[in-house]
Amino acid sequence: MSADGLRAVDGLARSLARPLAVVGREPTDETIARVFLGAIAEPGDGTMGNAIEALGAARVARLVHERASTGAFAEALAESGIVVEARVLAAAVERWLPRIDDAALVRSVEQAGRVGARLLLPSDDSWPVALDDLGAHAPLALWVRGDVGLLARARRTIALVGARAATGYGEHVAVESAAGLSDRGFTIVSGGAYGIDGAAHRATLRAGGSTVAFLAGGVDRFYPAGHEQLLSRIVETGAVVSELPCGQAPTKWRFLSRNRLIAASTAATVVLEAGYRSGSLNTAGHASELGRPLGAVPGPVTSPASAGCHRLLREFDAVCVTDAGQMAELALGTSFDGDLLDGFEASTAATAEGLRVLDALSARATRPVDDVARRAGLDPRTVRSVLGSLEAEGRAKRGFDGWVSVRRAT
Amino acid sequence: MSADGLRAVDGLARSLARPLAVVGREPTDETIARVFLGAIAEPGDGTMGNAIEALGAARVARLVHERASTGAFAEALAESGIVVEARVLAAAVERWLPRIDDAALVRSVEQAGRVGARLLLPSDDSWPVALDDLGAHAPLALWVRGDVGLLARARRTIALVGARAATGYGEHVAVESAAGLSDRGFTIVSGGAYGIDGAAHRATLRAGGSTVAFLAGGVDRFYPAGHEQLLSRIVETGAVVSELPCGQAPTKWRFLSRNRLIAASTAATVVLEAGYRSGSLNTAGHASELGRPLGAVPGPVTSPASAGCHRLLREFDAVCVTDAGQMAELALGTSFDGDLLDGFEASTAATAEGLRVLDALSARATRPVDDVARRAGLDPRTVRSVLGSLEAEGRAKRGFDGWVSVRRAT
Repeated sequence: MSADGLRAVDGLARSLARPLAVVGREPTDETIARVFLGAIAEPGDGTMGNAIEALGAARVARLVHERASTGAFAEALAESGIVVEARVLAAAVERWLPRIDDAALVRSVEQAGRVGARLLLPSDDSWPVALDDLGAHAPLALWVRGDVGLLARARRTIALVGARAATGYGEHVAVESAAGLSDRGFTIVSGGAYGIDGAAHRATLRAGGSTVAFLAGGVDRFYPAGHEQLLSRIVETGAVVSELPCGQAPTKWRFLSRNRLIAASTAATVVLEAGYRSGSLNTAGHASELGRPLGAVPGPVTSPASAGCHRLLREFDAVCVTDAGQMAELALGTSFDGDLLDGFEASTAATAEGLRVLDALSARATRPVDDVARRAGLDPRTVRSVLGSLEAEGRAKRGFDGWVSVRRAT
Repeated sequence: MSADGLRAVDGLARSLARPLAVVGREPTDETIARVFLGAIAEPGDGTMGNAIEALGAARVARLVHERASTGAFAEALAESGIVVEARVLAAAVERWLPRIDDAALVRSVEQAGRVGARLLLPSDDSWPVALDDLGAHAPLALWVRGDVGLLARARRTIALVGARAATGYGEHVAVESAAGLSDRGFTIVSGGAYGIDGAAHRATLRAGGSTVAFLAGGVDRFYPAGHEQLLSRIVETGAVVSELPCGQAPTKWRFLSRNRLIAASTAATVVLEAGYRSGSLNTAGHASELGRPLGAVPGPVTSPASAGCHRLLREFDAVCVTDAGQMAELALGTSFDGDLLDGFEASTAATAEGLRVLDALSARATRPVDDVARRAGLDPRTVRSVLGSLEAEGRAKRGFDGWVSVRRAT
């Protein structure tokens, strides 16, 4: 930020210096600007993202803080070669200015310090760079309780999400998946909600794995209240993260925008159990839009609690995943292939000719090759070669005057 | 057939005249040739199919019946401009010649007459032309008990298949699917086996629908024995069909080749429940190779009986279908689309801005537009427009000095 920029938020910089020190930051222009703008814009505000991209956070912060007119914003953007439709910019300015409240902002950062939260910025080494794929909708900053570098450090990440209204089946799937993926070295990311999210977090902790919960409100108050203990345990070994400043309550809109962070911060998203209109389908939609692999676990078609997963398989090209191994494959990009007509078993007994020769053999009476050939509708040379392979596989035996089949041990 | 062709199978033609009359056919060259060759070649013998395509059934029948040498076959094919690899042709001739047995063939057609079977040939109006998509692997003829024209007449056809080792879940799905598709005017095709096939046939009969069972052996002996009564009931209103002549036993190979008829004769194939190595996956493979739509019904991932269906969804791009309506769509080629991020409900309350305004309203206290705008992080003009729509949807109400939200009736 230029000295010009600094002057405008000078007072704010002074008031924030001490609370920022508590959350481990110097009161630099960039830091102050992002903390300030993160309290002004709702999560994912694209006009804000574009303005910061064009002018830098400090300059945007100064413009907002001095309550610049739409014209002044447009002029600044035009200088950077950016043209924003006047109506869009006017609407943005009208959204932003009424939210300026320096005193509330200072209290919010103080509160972050009290609960031991840390502030993470895009320029930090610990920033999860995968979030940058969100472009203009990327978060301005993250508030983290727990292991602040976990997401950036994790080599394998996966989002396991699902509905709050989970069934015993869904929770079983969540527990098995989270445990199996933890064993494979994955960091499990979810939304901290009741039902599937909670089961995934819990199973990860039990397996000694690492897990991250993205919240839709400030990290000072854990939501839902019934997960206060679970989220506190996550803080001990993993991380509880939010882009919203402390003191901000979760809203429906914020739950939906929070979902983009779950999808963007991980290598793949898997929906474990979800009803037809479950919010977890929204996370799936974000994963899909970002080009991240998307998996869904099927369930009984008689269970409405799985209807959302089936919808993902049917309409949104999600990959059908049935266990932790397949989820790991999805996230790691391992490919697989197969051939339905030939690939049942790699044995002669499973080839077309092998089957026909086996059909033509008897387990009781020996049959000469010509007889087997006639019964199988194959020529004798082929039959002789197939019989040799079947013998090697223990499925046929040479007798005194022909061949018999050998029953397979079951 | 030329007089030249006729002469060679003259004796056979005389012996077959009366039994053919009983199954409703004139002893034409084509008819006799296809009946004869159908007893010589195993189902789906591509060399036979190609030879008939090149020379006509009558000429191939004459060559086989007079035990022509490989050289004579090669010469005849060469005259028609067809070159078959010598090794392939020699193997085919070695397969075919040992099976010539005129007396057994006459007994087989007599047996067909006794059980009331009819013979169907590709040139008949009642021939299910969809089978011609099998090319060289198409059946030479079909033996039908019941409604001989059913398959050709049916405007809507679908194959419902699955494992013999069905669970209660799988049978429930089969019953619901067959009944729902019958109600939608579909003819249900399956394999007459225990488990899923049987449940589908039975539910169709119960729903007053029409159903076709393709057998892997002659239609004179119903297999499996425990389905004798079921198959007899299918004959009354539907059809039991096989390409194998009467007297021929089902073999493992014939079960697999029978599957291609189930897949080829229908507009789509749906696997309702199948283990990882179920034979019904082979039917699915045929459908897929033929370019017919393939559907699979998911089940609990904890059930090995659904592992084959999940494999189809995962590795073979089967469409996830969860009810009869979706199966009908699959067969009729109806397309569908949706948008995960926007498509939840076609209402303002479900749009991003709608959600944010609803979040910002209170059900108890009225709030002025500016206050709602600040809370929602939206500009007042947008908020006003959204409030108007929410009012129309009954989700928001104008108060004396502002707006309140209206709780949704549940």
